[in-house]
Amino acid sequence: MRLSAEPSLDVAEYGFTHRIRVRFVETDAMGIVHHSNYLAYFEEARVAYLAAIGHPFTSWREAGLESPVLESFVSYRLPCRFDEVLDVHLSLSAATRATFQMSYLVTVDGEVRSSGVTVHGCTTLDGRATRLPAWLGEMATERVGRSS
Amino acid sequence: MRLSAEPSLDVAEYGFTHRIRVRFVETDAMGIVHHSNYLAYFEEARVAYLAAIGHPFTSWREAGLESPVLESFVSYRLPCRFDEVLDVHLSLSAATRATFQMSYLVTVDGEVRSSGVTVHGCTTLDGRATRLPAWLGEMATERVGRSS
Amino acid sequence: MRLSAEPSLDVAEYGFTHRIRVRFVETDAMGIVHHSNYLAYFEEARVAYLAAIGHPFTSWREAGLESPVLESFVSYRLPCRFDEVLDVHLSLSAATRATFQMSYLVTVDGEVRSSGVTVHGCTTLDGRATRLPAWLGEMATERVGRSS
Amino acid sequence: MRLSAEPSLDVAEYGFTHRIRVRFVETDAMGIVHHSNYLAYFEEARVAYLAAIGHPFTSWREAGLESPVLESFVSYRLPCRFDEVLDVHLSLSAATRATFQMSYLVTVDGEVRSSGVTVHGCTTLDGRATRLPAWLGEMATERVGRSS
Repeated sequence: MRLSAEPSLDVAEYGFTHRIRVRFVETDAMGIVHHSNYLAYFEEARVAYLAAIGHPFTSWREAGLESPVLESFVSYRLPCRFDEVLDVHLSLSAATRATFQMSYLVTVDGEVRSSGVTVHGCTTLDGRATRLPAWLGEMATERVGRSS
Repeated sequence: MRLSAEPSLDVAEYGFTHRIRVRFVETDAMGIVHHSNYLAYFEEARVAYLAAIGHPFTSWREAGLESPVLESFVSYRLPCRFDEVLDVHLSLSAATRATFQMSYLVTVDGEVRSSGVTVHGCTTLDGRATRLPAWLGEMATERVGRSS
Repeated sequence: MRLSAEPSLDVAEYGFTHRIRVRFVETDAMGIVHHSNYLAYFEEARVAYLAAIGHPFTSWREAGLESPVLESFVSYRLPCRFDEVLDVHLSLSAATRATFQMSYLVTVDGEVRSSGVTVHGCTTLDGRATRLPAWLGEMATERVGRSS
Repeated sequence: MRLSAEPSLDVAEYGFTHRIRVRFVETDAMGIVHHSNYLAYFEEARVAYLAAIGHPFTSWREAGLESPVLESFVSYRLPCRFDEVLDVHLSLSAATRATFQMSYLVTVDGEVRSSGVTVHGCTTLDGRATRLPAWLGEMATERVGRSS
């Protein structure tokens, strides 16, 4: 397991927030959001974050890079329901030369519903592992430095 | 609308059947299969059919062809529920030089639950419209001839 | 087929618009949005519309009503891709005592990508067909009157 | 994190296998299975396993019990592609009075593609935590005993 940290349950530890309203298609016969959808929510938040910091995924692909998910972890604390508005808090929590890790906290009106972590690699478009973009390594170092 | 025919509700009109067990993830908060999943069921049946007649999608792609969906129609007659076993009946119901049409009937223990139609084009891998493979045009002509 | 009309391709015919950014999870190996996702986009727009006119789905359920999809039709004109921002235009296009019909047009920067129709019934929470809420019948009559 | 063990990469450690063919809808624009689908594959395998040992989910619900996912972990080792046939190997790997844990290994022709763990609770139908069914606790004890 490369996952190095459990995500914090403190909203203040996260530097970025993205809002998502739960779709009906995302619910299941228990009347709650099906657990597989949180990975899609994390991804949507990650895409919004990378765009917000000036490194959208579309620019990664133009640079010949993909960022596949190597590992994911989700903790389902309280269920989410149709039409609720989720705040997906996100932070870049670690990086090595070849991988980076993002942490997520999902809240509704400040109540913690879910948390999670994804670990990502960096590959060329034909799938071979390569180094992370320099800006990502630097940013991760700063962030991890600040939070410790 | 290119759709030329309402799908028959008579199982005997269909030449191929593919079984699918409903996944929990496919249900919604009404306790039934979400209506968007029928298009995925039709697609799974279509893939199985093309493999069964010796023209799997993987061979289309090797031949440089894609088969995008141009139109879809679904009639939701009775709901399907978690863990039910669906019989997806399928038939190739029409073809022109550039498009073909498939009809579907979903039954559970012989009871009709849903029916539908998809219309497909044929394109090169870079998305330009091209002629259907010859075998498909011939097959459609035979079938349509037979059923009239 | 209960569907009574092909959706207009003229944005001006639609009274409501809802924006959706394409998620990566919604793409497929052809590099475009998988055709089943348009039904989820239509649903998200429909939910937003009903909330905007003061009759959110949550109030339907509190009133003991569901609104199942009876039929769907989608025309896929041009593909949509990851991270594109879709304008889903919607209008209530017909209603009887027991069913109503909505039309959809999906554009990106004004370019038509897709159109569709859904037909809905009205049931009690245990699934029995019932009359539409009065406001919906009245609204549909006005709209259909105006557009003819 | 309640997850207590990384899943074994040795197929022989798993007592049950369920086959799933990758659907086209499950692929993404990287040309591979989107990472969120593995949770649906694990779920389908879990449902098949519980049915195979004589305790199908439908009987849980008749007994007034649900089994929500509390945590999930997935390690994506090699990608899976459209139309590949996955062997999802599964084993019940731990249990307490209130939770149980399942491990998964996904192989294609014997090659490891992915592994994972899910942790489950047990609740009444209105969502309150309750004890696991007795048979499940006993089975987990035996299995964990055997494998140590």
